[in-house]
Amino acid sequence: MKEVTAIIRMNMINATKAALLKSKFPSFTCRKVVGRGKKKVRFLMIDDESIESKAVEDKKFVEDISEMHRLVPKRMLTILVKDEEVQELVELIIDVNRTSNPGDGKIFVSDVTDVYRIRTGEVGEEAL
Amino acid sequence: MKEVTAIIRMNMINATKAALLKSKFPSFTCRKVVGRGKKKVRFLMIDDESIESKAVEDKKFVEDISEMHRLVPKRMLTILVKDEEVQELVELIIDVNRTSNPGDGKIFVSDVTDVYRIRTGEVGEEAL
Amino acid sequence: MKEVTAIIRMNMINATKAALLKSKFPSFTCRKVVGRGKKKVRFLMIDDESIESKAVEDKKFVEDISEMHRLVPKRMLTILVKDEEVQELVELIIDVNRTSNPGDGKIFVSDVTDVYRIRTGEVGEEAL
Repeated sequence: MKEVTAIIRMNMINATKAALLKSKFPSFTCRKVVGRGKKKVRFLMIDDESIESKAVEDKKFVEDISEMHRLVPKRMLTILVKDEEVQELVELIIDVNRTSNPGDGKIFVSDVTDVYRIRTGEVGEEAL
Repeated sequence: MKEVTAIIRMNMINATKAALLKSKFPSFTCRKVVGRGKKKVRFLMIDDESIESKAVEDKKFVEDISEMHRLVPKRMLTILVKDEEVQELVELIIDVNRTSNPGDGKIFVSDVTDVYRIRTGEVGEEAL
Repeated sequence: MKEVTAIIRMNMINATKAALLKSKFPSFTCRKVVGRGKKKVRFLMIDDESIESKAVEDKKFVEDISEMHRLVPKRMLTILVKDEEVQELVELIIDVNRTSNPGDGKIFVSDVTDVYRIRTGEVGEEAL
């Protein structure tokens, strides 16, 4: 079994929830995180066009701000699946979440050695 | 070494804390998550008996609501243990958290390749 | 690839962010957690020296309080790196976060089988 963890944009959570519900992976866990990627985030560009146009005149100002490498709120989803389902789930998450702009997020996959359902005591793939 | 992650009901955190404290696994990390399982949640049933009795008369109403697949707040615990302690810890968590109703939660276990205690630099099982 | 998870003191997050930014590991995810370690936390000692000196006169009082095993707010960082970078990252985190007092936190390392960058679809070390 695998744990698939996706870090996605906050505003993508509803579309992702809906897509998962229609798929064979309805169940998941979600938490709030903050993070930053390799690319510096140019918040001015994102938040406010008027400040951005000011900033273009004043390039140093933009660069100073972008140096801050601010942390961006994200949502982290965790979904447990069978090994042979990983590819399908990853493709589904990428389909829903790709905007092709920096900040779309990441998916990482790791092994899970055992899963238990507390209610029934079921173990392994039965408990997924 | 293993990482044991338990997703449990919010109102079970105190009983679980107390049980862990009395066991040989006192140390853990806890965070707020929201999630949903495979079963649709019948919130009416859980939240309010009077609405539920109304709902029984009006089956379609209940079903519409349950279609929402709302996310339920949960607590996620992470506990690091030696390989040979996993079974004991899993049984302890199941004992405390089983109500036999849907929503009791899940436990999943994964390998941890290294653990470090920041204070001392201890590595491996010494650092658990 | 490895996932390096560090649980650190809340007030160490800014120094850790700065150190990561200057290193080759600028990108990470951070979340709020609460937790407790093996050692009982003597909050009186930490929070307020005057209460502590009172407490010394009244040893039972201190012990009662410390029995509570309160959960302490922490920050949990997750950083994805190549296998051969783990040691460098772990040393960096220990350097910044070691105060040599109980509560400095832990680092644990686990295998990641796949990483995807949602924006580009890149896979594996390309996506780190």
